[in-house]
Amino acid sequence: MRVEIVAVGTELLLGQIVDTNSTMISQRLADVGLDCFFQAKVGDNLERIKLVLRDALSRSDAVIVCGGLGPTQDDITREAIAGVMGVPLEMHEDIAESIKAIFSSRGRTMSQNNLLQAMVPVGASAITQVRGTAPGLIAPVGRKVIYAAPGVPYELSEMLDRAIIPDLLERQGDKASIVSRVIRCWGLSESALAERLDPLFQEIDSTKAPITLAFLASGIEGIKVRLSARADTKEAASQVISRYEAKVLEVIGDHVFGYDDTTMEAAVGELLLERSLTLAVAESVTGGLVASRIVAVPGASRWFRGGVVSYDTEVKRTLLGVVADDVITAQAVIEMAIGVRSAIKSDVGLAFSGVGGPEGVGDHAVGTVFVGVDLGDGAPFAHELKLPGDRERIRQFSTISGLDLLRRRILKG
Amino acid sequence: MRVEIVAVGTELLLGQIVDTNSTMISQRLADVGLDCFFQAKVGDNLERIKLVLRDALSRSDAVIVCGGLGPTQDDITREAIAGVMGVPLEMHEDIAESIKAIFSSRGRTMSQNNLLQAMVPVGASAITQVRGTAPGLIAPVGRKVIYAAPGVPYELSEMLDRAIIPDLLERQGDKASIVSRVIRCWGLSESALAERLDPLFQEIDSTKAPITLAFLASGIEGIKVRLSARADTKEAASQVISRYEAKVLEVIGDHVFGYDDTTMEAAVGELLLERSLTLAVAESVTGGLVASRIVAVPGASRWFRGGVVSYDTEVKRTLLGVVADDVITAQAVIEMAIGVRSAIKSDVGLAFSGVGGPEGVGDHAVGTVFVGVDLGDGAPFAHELKLPGDRERIRQFSTISGLDLLRRRILKG
Repeated sequence: MRVEIVAVGTELLLGQIVDTNSTMISQRLADVGLDCFFQAKVGDNLERIKLVLRDALSRSDAVIVCGGLGPTQDDITREAIAGVMGVPLEMHEDIAESIKAIFSSRGRTMSQNNLLQAMVPVGASAITQVRGTAPGLIAPVGRKVIYAAPGVPYELSEMLDRAIIPDLLERQGDKASIVSRVIRCWGLSESALAERLDPLFQEIDSTKAPITLAFLASGIEGIKVRLSARADTKEAASQVISRYEAKVLEVIGDHVFGYDDTTMEAAVGELLLERSLTLAVAESVTGGLVASRIVAVPGASRWFRGGVVSYDTEVKRTLLGVVADDVITAQAVIEMAIGVRSAIKSDVGLAFSGVGGPEGVGDHAVGTVFVGVDLGDGAPFAHELKLPGDRERIRQFSTISGLDLLRRRILKG
Repeated sequence: MRVEIVAVGTELLLGQIVDTNSTMISQRLADVGLDCFFQAKVGDNLERIKLVLRDALSRSDAVIVCGGLGPTQDDITREAIAGVMGVPLEMHEDIAESIKAIFSSRGRTMSQNNLLQAMVPVGASAITQVRGTAPGLIAPVGRKVIYAAPGVPYELSEMLDRAIIPDLLERQGDKASIVSRVIRCWGLSESALAERLDPLFQEIDSTKAPITLAFLASGIEGIKVRLSARADTKEAASQVISRYEAKVLEVIGDHVFGYDDTTMEAAVGELLLERSLTLAVAESVTGGLVASRIVAVPGASRWFRGGVVSYDTEVKRTLLGVVADDVITAQAVIEMAIGVRSAIKSDVGLAFSGVGGPEGVGDHAVGTVFVGVDLGDGAPFAHELKLPGDRERIRQFSTISGLDLLRRRILKG
C-alpha cells in the first residue's frame, strides 16, 4: 500500500518553519512497513491543495495531509478535501458541542471561528481529538482515502498513533508484523559506529535476513541505531530483533545507554534509583539545561533533588563555595560538584563549567567544557571536553556527555 | 516567476533526516520575492525523480532540485535531468580535472566514482563548486530551467547565493522587492487574535493592498503574525509594512512582546538591561527550563545572575527560606521569588511552582502553576495559571507566561 504525505501551510513554503511533521509521519510509516514515495508541501491556497491531493491520489492509495485544520480563514484543508470528494461541508453538532466543552473546562469563551472546526465533508468521518480542538478526518475517495490531521506536532503525533496508522494497516489487511527497536549510543561518532557494524551489515545482506539496520541522525539525543524485523507474528519478529540486538551489543555494547525513547538522563535516573542515590546539579555554561532535561523524565523527583544555576561567577562562590581563581578549570568544577552536593544535600553532585561562545574566555577556547562529579567517596573527579559547534550545540552536547560520564562512573561501581 | 523545490533522497522519505534544505531555499526565494507554490520530496528513483521534475515544470518556470549529485550509485539526479531534457550525459574533462585536483590538494586519491560528478547533460552547463566536489547544473528545458545543487547544506547555501538566485533574478528581469516582518504576541489565543484582526483582513482584501497578513502557529514561542509587503523598492515595501504594522498594533498592541526573531526571554532581557536590573529565577515545576532559555539569549550575562532549581520541597525551605506549608500556592511562590532574589543577590526574583503532571498533587490539578515576582519594592505578587497539555507543554507555557508576567510588570513602571 502506498501512502503520500502533504504538508499544508504557506509558512512552510516561505521557509519560516521547518517541516518536521512530514519527517514524523515518514518514520511512523517506515516503522510499520508502509511505502511512501512522494511527499509535498503546498500553501494555504484552495486550488493548489486540491491539485496536490488529486496528484497524490492518482499515484498512491492514501494521502495523509497535515495542517490547515485550525479555526482561522487561512485554514482550508476541510474545504479542499470536500472539493476533491465533490461534496459539500456539513456541521456536526456533536463536534461543536465537544469544542465548546473544551473551552468552558478551561474557563475560556469559545470564539465563533472555532465552530469551523466542526465542519466535515459529507461522507467523511471525524477523528476525535484528545490534545487540541481540531478533529481529524478520514475521507474516502473512491477506493482510496485522505486522512487529515492537525499541523501541531503534539496533536498530530497522538492522532497518528491512535487513529491513522491503525486505520491504514487495517485497510491494508497486512498480516506481517513489524517490530522495531532503537539502540541508543554515545561515545563513538556515527562513522566509527558504522565501521564497527559493517561486518554485521554484510552478514544481514548476504544471508538476506528479515531485518534492517539503519542509523538515525540524532545529534543531541545520542546516536540511534534502528533495527526493524518483519515476520508472520509479533513474537517471531521480536525474536529476530533479540538475536540481532545481541550481535550489535557484542560490537558496541559499552557505548549503549538505552533503548527506544530512553534518554541519557532517564538512563542515569534508573541507575541512581536502583542504588537509592539522589542527584544535584550545578550549572554554569549549560545554564539550567541539564536540570531541565532531567525534570522532563517521569518520576525524576524520586532521584533528583534540584540544582543551582551559578551563571555569574559570584554566585559560584557564595552559593557553592568555589575558591579556585579560574572558574573554567577541573579544580573549579570539582568544587562546584562538591558544593552543590552539600548545599542541596544529595548523594551525588554533578557540575558543568565552560565556554559556550561565541567568544572565548581568557585562555579558554569556545567549546572548552569541564564536567565534575562528586560521589562523596573522597575521590571527586573532572573531565575536559572540547566540543565543536555553536553555543546551543555546545550546551546540549555538554549535557549528554556529562551525564554519560556520570553513567559510566556509576556502572563501574 | 514561479519556482519549485525538489529535495531528492530516500532517507528523507523514510523520515531519517529532516528536510532543512527546502526551508533554506524557500527563505532565499521569499527574500527576493520569487514565488514558490509547491515543494516536493522524492527518493533515489530515476522514474520518480523525472516524474516530479516534469510535474513541476508543467506548473512553474523553474525548479531547484537538491541532492543526488554525489559519487555513489544512488546519486541519479544528473541522469534524471538528462532524461527530462531528452539528451544523453557527456563527460566534461575540465570538471574531471578540477575534481582530481581537489583530491590531490587534500593528499587523497580520487575514487573512480567521483568521475561521475563530471558528467553533464548535453546542452546544460555546470555551476562550479567551491565547497565540495559536485558541480551544480543549470539545465534549460524549453523556456524553463532546472537548477541542480548539492544536498550538503553548507555547499547548497553557497551555490544558492552565488549562482542560482542571481541567475533566477536575471531571468526574471524583475525589480520587485519584498519586505517581511513578524510580530510576536502572547496573552491571546490565535483565534481571538484572528477575530480582532478580521476587520484589517477585510480592509486589505477590499483595497487590494500590496500586503499579506498571516498567522504562524508557534506554540512555545508565542503567536507570530507575519506581514509581507511587495513594492518596486525595498524602501517603498518597508513603508507599506510600517503602515500596516501600526494598524495591527492599534488592535493588539498590549499583547506584542517583540518582532522577528526576538524571543520572550530576549524581550524581557532588553527591558531589564535598559533599567540596569539583574534577574534570578527559582524553579520547581519548570526545573531549569526558564534559566536554560534565558542563558540562550546572547549577552544574558549582563542581566541574568543565575537561579535555584528547588525541585525537592526540602530544597525550597533550606535554600530559599520558604515557610508556607503548601508549596503550590501564591504564598509559597512569592516566598520563592523573595528567597532567590536574596540568595543570588539580584534586583528581581522570578519564581515558578506548580503541577506538571501526569498526576495531580494533593488538591492541585495538573496544569496549575503559580508564578511569583519580587522587585524588592515591598509589593511582591503572584499569578495563577491553568494550563492544558502534557508535562512538557505545561513547562514551556509556564515559562513564556511567567516571563510575560514579568514583562508587563516592568512596563507598568
